[in-house]
Amino acid sequence: MNKVQIIQNYLQEKNIDAAFITTPDNVFYLSGFSSDPHERLLGVMVFKNAEPFMICPKMEVPDAKAAGWSFETVGHDDTENAWEIFHNTAKARNVQLNSIAIEKTHLTVERLEALQAFYPTTKFVGLDEQLNNMRLVKSEDELEKLRVAAKLADYAIEVGCNELAEGKTEIEVLSAIESAMKAKGVYMSFDTMVLTGLNAASPHGTPGTQKIQKGDLVLFDLGVVYEGYCSDITRTVAFGEPSEAQKAVYEAVKKANEAAIAAVKPGVPAMDLDKIARDAISEAGYGEYFTHRLGHGLGISVHEFPSVHGANEMTIKEGMVFTIEPGIYKGDTAGVRIEDDVYVTANGVEVLTSFPKELQIIEPK
Amino acid sequence: MNKVQIIQNYLQEKNIDAAFITTPDNVFYLSGFSSDPHERLLGVMVFKNAEPFMICPKMEVPDAKAAGWSFETVGHDDTENAWEIFHNTAKARNVQLNSIAIEKTHLTVERLEALQAFYPTTKFVGLDEQLNNMRLVKSEDELEKLRVAAKLADYAIEVGCNELAEGKTEIEVLSAIESAMKAKGVYMSFDTMVLTGLNAASPHGTPGTQKIQKGDLVLFDLGVVYEGYCSDITRTVAFGEPSEAQKAVYEAVKKANEAAIAAVKPGVPAMDLDKIARDAISEAGYGEYFTHRLGHGLGISVHEFPSVHGANEMTIKEGMVFTIEPGIYKGDTAGVRIEDDVYVTANGVEVLTSFPKELQIIEPK
Repeated sequence: MNKVQIIQNYLQEKNIDAAFITTPDNVFYLSGFSSDPHERLLGVMVFKNAEPFMICPKMEVPDAKAAGWSFETVGHDDTENAWEIFHNTAKARNVQLNSIAIEKTHLTVERLEALQAFYPTTKFVGLDEQLNNMRLVKSEDELEKLRVAAKLADYAIEVGCNELAEGKTEIEVLSAIESAMKAKGVYMSFDTMVLTGLNAASPHGTPGTQKIQKGDLVLFDLGVVYEGYCSDITRTVAFGEPSEAQKAVYEAVKKANEAAIAAVKPGVPAMDLDKIARDAISEAGYGEYFTHRLGHGLGISVHEFPSVHGANEMTIKEGMVFTIEPGIYKGDTAGVRIEDDVYVTANGVEVLTSFPKELQIIEPK
Repeated sequence: MNKVQIIQNYLQEKNIDAAFITTPDNVFYLSGFSSDPHERLLGVMVFKNAEPFMICPKMEVPDAKAAGWSFETVGHDDTENAWEIFHNTAKARNVQLNSIAIEKTHLTVERLEALQAFYPTTKFVGLDEQLNNMRLVKSEDELEKLRVAAKLADYAIEVGCNELAEGKTEIEVLSAIESAMKAKGVYMSFDTMVLTGLNAASPHGTPGTQKIQKGDLVLFDLGVVYEGYCSDITRTVAFGEPSEAQKAVYEAVKKANEAAIAAVKPGVPAMDLDKIARDAISEAGYGEYFTHRLGHGLGISVHEFPSVHGANEMTIKEGMVFTIEPGIYKGDTAGVRIEDDVYVTANGVEVLTSFPKELQIIEPK
């Protein structure tokens, strides 16, 4: 069953007349068409009992069709009223629209008001949960793309390690990584992070002209997009022999990462995974330095549903893909994070990222 | 007068009790604090008659203060209800909130509903136009940053021209440009575009492994962010001797670009600028191949208010900065776009980008 049909079945089951899907990632999920429309209107309208259509900027109409969208596609240009075109296209279906499902976490108030102007008596209900649940469980086809994206991320870390040299800046190393990935024809899923020494001890540190020095721990956080699907990996390596204090921090994070991964299987509450990692770090005496959630869902978006944190009671399901990324940021010693992408199998877990987690010591040349 | 005061004066004038500003770009504009909070709540609450506050992810509270935000800053983490924290902080001001201005073009329906749950009788009105108008006219300080951003974009085009060589791929050239800019400590304002030959004839072409060949026109579209302010430039150059047909397309675009720029001054309707460029291209016989608007506002965002297109009656004002970027995309001949960033002076225009517009012929080595 294709995804548009799943939405249609949902509308029939809930007796909602139509669904208007506007997040570019969800438009891609439903149609295969990837577009960044900026401020312009892009959306897929699915009806309970009529043919769906897509509305997009006029010059992208052929791209939408080429991407595999086989239903009607209407274009609009900057001088036209996109909402009027939307309304006329919907009207031609000749169906009552007493209720329309929208993405409340994405649709802006302005756009809701534009819809309400054409449909003043229509009830607008949320479709977010349904879409989140659809995207939560990955198909075999999606998993295959995520596996490739993860392998490419492993390779990017390898490139980064090979680039390390005394006196090179963080930016020089990250540029080399990004160039190598572009040469493979893939884009990064977010701005690559290379942080050296105590610069890595800030969870929101920014790569700059800080130079790599012997004795630094170097943190890489990066990911790529492969055929629309993202990876996200973090590794921390030692440039030259690490101190005992650095090693202790590293081992605590590694233990937390491994303990949480070992606990992944269907039926476990997300919050338990966070707690397992947090407890491991607390037992090692660094509890106060693990300042963020354990992880996040991963797929078409690099951050997607669900958030894996200590208050999320949701149970883990087979087919989910998310990150596990404990970290310790101790301003006077080290910043270490180890992040993997995991896929939940029927009985446990498949770890998609595979760059080694034993502390890698890069010898200065 | 600082920007928070301008908002306060506006609230007093319109008798609105508060304004909640949530676009990261507008938070930066008001506070100097630049943050990408992903799905987390970030916002500045300005009251008609009380001290403003900022709400942001807990780990960014010190960064907000360091960036110069001198009022209260409240943090929230992933396990807390950010809206409850927002509500309690607002409540401590002890002021009636009969009306709150919001950014309707940014605030999602879900967030409006979250606010409405705490403020069920409050009227929510739009603040977008006021913020657009504030940001429209650039201060001397902002202009200075935009000038630097434009100069860096000029330099990036120069780097790109120097990188051109027979058989190099588009991606190799763009990687070299991005590396050179990162080495200067600046990020790109959007994904750099390098398109060669007929690949440039698609206005939404994507750089790939297409190789540069003698006789190609090569299109560069790129920009950088300097201290929070963006540039956006397009140049098209010839790699080896161009054909007469390529030259004709190039000259038509150049004429359109120059005619529109020459017409920029306070009082001119934006739509007239679009028409001047479009007429020049139509007169040369390529009207059907200029498939997009003339330009867009530029500042903290790379695409900001206003949109410069053929139906926008808004008059140009002193202090505005926007792009002028006519193009011709003729599938069997060439894709050419020439884009400049312009600042509207009291009597005319200052063009911020300055890479030469006479067709540059790069000799293959």
